[in-house]
Amino acid sequence: MATVARINGQAHRLDEVALSALDHGFLYGNGLFETLRATNGVAFALDRHLRRLTGSAAVIGLPAPQVDWLADEVRAALADAGEADAYVRLTVSRGPGAPGPDPSTCGAPTVVIVVRPFPAAPSAWWERGLSLVTSPIRRNPFSPLTRLKSLNYLECILARQAAKAAGADDALFLDTDGYLAEATAWNLFLVESGRLLTPDAQGPILPGITRGIVLELATGETGAYEPARLRAADEAFLTNSLYGTVPLGTLDGCRVGGAVPGPVTRTLADAYENLRRAHCGM
Amino acid sequence: MATVARINGQAHRLDEVALSALDHGFLYGNGLFETLRATNGVAFALDRHLRRLTGSAAVIGLPAPQVDWLADEVRAALADAGEADAYVRLTVSRGPGAPGPDPSTCGAPTVVIVVRPFPAAPSAWWERGLSLVTSPIRRNPFSPLTRLKSLNYLECILARQAAKAAGADDALFLDTDGYLAEATAWNLFLVESGRLLTPDAQGPILPGITRGIVLELATGETGAYEPARLRAADEAFLTNSLYGTVPLGTLDGCRVGGAVPGPVTRTLADAYENLRRAHCGM
Repeated sequence: MATVARINGQAHRLDEVALSALDHGFLYGNGLFETLRATNGVAFALDRHLRRLTGSAAVIGLPAPQVDWLADEVRAALADAGEADAYVRLTVSRGPGAPGPDPSTCGAPTVVIVVRPFPAAPSAWWERGLSLVTSPIRRNPFSPLTRLKSLNYLECILARQAAKAAGADDALFLDTDGYLAEATAWNLFLVESGRLLTPDAQGPILPGITRGIVLELATGETGAYEPARLRAADEAFLTNSLYGTVPLGTLDGCRVGGAVPGPVTRTLADAYENLRRAHCGM
Repeated sequence: MATVARINGQAHRLDEVALSALDHGFLYGNGLFETLRATNGVAFALDRHLRRLTGSAAVIGLPAPQVDWLADEVRAALADAGEADAYVRLTVSRGPGAPGPDPSTCGAPTVVIVVRPFPAAPSAWWERGLSLVTSPIRRNPFSPLTRLKSLNYLECILARQAAKAAGADDALFLDTDGYLAEATAWNLFLVESGRLLTPDAQGPILPGITRGIVLELATGETGAYEPARLRAADEAFLTNSLYGTVPLGTLDGCRVGGAVPGPVTRTLADAYENLRRAHCGM
């Protein structure tokens, strides 16, 4: 796996150690990240990702670098890597400080950008749709972290591991009140009698960049929806920044909707992919 | 600040970089930690801390090293440091892997032990008691992380920062159902007509080592308690492994109980400190 990185503005080989063991990103998960797809050296929706990152940084009191500098760093990392189709991970952590949960002891934040070849989606995702199982872990509306892409990602790791052990692709989170929330790395949409529905971004979900673009490409309603609505939907799909729009096939072993992909999923997947290709000069 | 570390079995200076930027402890908060106090080179309740760590590791699928090896490493770090009174932080993270939320790509876990001089408790804690404000963040009974001391510590950081900005020492978490849970780095006890009460460890709290020792030193009841019980308590105190047993002074600006410390707090603080001193050969 060819993989390159930039750390704090410098190119690095990833097999060398590069971080302080006192980085509060490591000690306390104090930091944020973004995951993007880049084609022909162009990261799609980079501006939206960086605006989300800096907006989230303000919420947690993280002195993130300026958007323009971060954008230049992402472009430099992509130029270093030279991958035609790339996965990009941008991490901004609180940086090294004193051991103890006081971020005011930290100096400058740590910025890590990793670029690797883009991992292709399994063809089964389009042939049979993603399979989800409902996680016993539920999203907490009383935590600001639910709405941030932070380094506190272990709930998603655990939920996905359990889903894979149960033979599924990923886990579906409800919120603590029992309403539909999201999958571990995907936002959720359903189609009901021609209406496009998705859990409200005011609820305990990560407001995904692709989710936002889909809601610009099509008229959608947002709200709090019970799981029965998803089980009875005409079709459903999932969105994220790596894979765009992917049909949902089953929930807890039961089929959702009819043919995969459904017609709304197909239309929106094409519209999103056309937008992305145009942006990346394809 | 004299500070020493051991990383993966080797002594390190802490001003050198030592971690991979692909450590899943950094990328995803996939890891655990323990915080201990050591006097005369002896870490108090080390066996209990290591049993909790390895038990938690099994919950999240982290292949932690054996307890005996970890204990030897903590002792080696304390010998390196030579501090008469020391703060010890032991971190075990998932180790370096491929970027992407799949821990099966990781190799051996990363073990970091940091030793620094013990930070003395502010004398005000014993003169007026700790001051807490109720956090808007609530503990999630549907997340396994609530009961683990994981690298996903950002909720505690944010809650404590907000509490300090409001002029208090720390934040009190309720759970999502509105019952008393814990403070960010403390378990909570209250005394009501001579009865010692503490939130049940089956609920959404971290089962603290000091909490467990206090419940061996005194007969206590565990359950789900509404915040009004705390506001009306005869006395209340907080426990953690660094400071033992510390009186609560105020909650949301209102005094809790009478004189600080209350008689039960004083008795249990002395009993705990005597136990710790005997263990550490003082």
